[in-house]
Amino acid sequence: MTYCVAIKLKSGLVFASDSRTNAGVDQVSCFRKMRSFIDPGNRVIVTLCSGNLSITQNALNLMELQGRHSDRRNIWNVESMFDVAQLLGESLRQVRETDGAFLAQSNVDSGANFLVGGQVGNERIRLFLVYAEGNFIEAGEETPFFQIGETKYGKPILDRVITPTTPIAEAIKCVMVSFDSTMRSNLSVGLPIDLACYESGSLKLGFEHHITAQDPYFSQISRHWGEGLRGLFASLPAPDWLNPSTSQPGS
Amino acid sequence: MTYCVAIKLKSGLVFASDSRTNAGVDQVSCFRKMRSFIDPGNRVIVTLCSGNLSITQNALNLMELQGRHSDRRNIWNVESMFDVAQLLGESLRQVRETDGAFLAQSNVDSGANFLVGGQVGNERIRLFLVYAEGNFIEAGEETPFFQIGETKYGKPILDRVITPTTPIAEAIKCVMVSFDSTMRSNLSVGLPIDLACYESGSLKLGFEHHITAQDPYFSQISRHWGEGLRGLFASLPAPDWLNPSTSQPGS
Repeated sequence: MTYCVAIKLKSGLVFASDSRTNAGVDQVSCFRKMRSFIDPGNRVIVTLCSGNLSITQNALNLMELQGRHSDRRNIWNVESMFDVAQLLGESLRQVRETDGAFLAQSNVDSGANFLVGGQVGNERIRLFLVYAEGNFIEAGEETPFFQIGETKYGKPILDRVITPTTPIAEAIKCVMVSFDSTMRSNLSVGLPIDLACYESGSLKLGFEHHITAQDPYFSQISRHWGEGLRGLFASLPAPDWLNPSTSQPGS
Repeated sequence: MTYCVAIKLKSGLVFASDSRTNAGVDQVSCFRKMRSFIDPGNRVIVTLCSGNLSITQNALNLMELQGRHSDRRNIWNVESMFDVAQLLGESLRQVRETDGAFLAQSNVDSGANFLVGGQVGNERIRLFLVYAEGNFIEAGEETPFFQIGETKYGKPILDRVITPTTPIAEAIKCVMVSFDSTMRSNLSVGLPIDLACYESGSLKLGFEHHITAQDPYFSQISRHWGEGLRGLFASLPAPDWLNPSTSQPGS
């Protein structure tokens, strides 16, 4: 399984992905699910992926390859993030067309999703979710984040905290809690976490961090949040519709 | 969608279910998903269901009907909760065998799950999860709760709080938070909530409550929890690996 989240704020973008892939519980590996394509001063593009690893790796390689060896529109010369999402969708379709039928013969799902965001030239920052079918949607004013993979456990805290005006540091903190909740409830999502931030208009990757099990900040957040939740829960009143003998232990 | 949870504690059982069913967003209704079968002093059995409503209703009706009109083993005369789970699984299989193929013709899923728990005579309290195929598993020492339906949003708080020694009032409080989280993230799970508690050895239903939108306790828990989470989140430290200018707003 995978968990990836990308947040579009007024001030910039935040990307995070876990590193665990598994093909059955006896075949768990660690792969980076974040790729960035950077041409400083010109474009910063970050991709996150979930789903079949051979499909997502090949789609990205195919997209990059076309950029190196052709004069056609490619990730390094297109003038908009919309074109980038389109290129990625096309590469994904191409790989699935080539490999999908073979995978299906062994009942292997060739489904895969991407989050792709960044900034190209003077265009505003943009964020897209590319579906397994190669079509895509863009995050709007009212949609400050997208998730792919094991999305449910980490969604409530994002729902409660993230708005377009949330500062980047606050969003990172929220992403940490979101990953902590996800990893606590789903063993197939695991450290290390790759984290990247992009400040709107900078056209360079502002900040990258690789969070391992030894990361003191992540450990602190995880412990503080867990203890805080238990404390908050203990502070809730006991139900008043129980008889006194049953309601006392919970008060 | 549906959300049901049943908890097996040393001191007794807690059952809770929402009431929303939907066949597309334009066809949302309110149905009770909790049924109890009580013969005071002899047996208390509570069922919760998720999935296709016609299938679950008919499976329960079939099981009850067999009890009224036959001398065969039925829900009122079997000597163990294991037999009850088996009866329910058999009824479910029978209804799916009759209706499943017709539903499949219209691409309607005939899948359905049950939680069934209670106490029969001098046997200990027991809790079972009946799968759509009619097979079932029992909650053991290390599995204090089962969920069916939209299970993910409400699972983290149960994971953090519930152990076999949790008092019933504490478990009810936790169930309220679990439902609040689920309803906040999935619109297709909705009030009212049916809640029932059974105290081990009592052989009578200890407590039943129907929680509507006007319930002051549920509103209080929901508000207190939401505000508390925001407060707890605000108290978390900002990431220390950001440069000072970006990290200040979150601290």
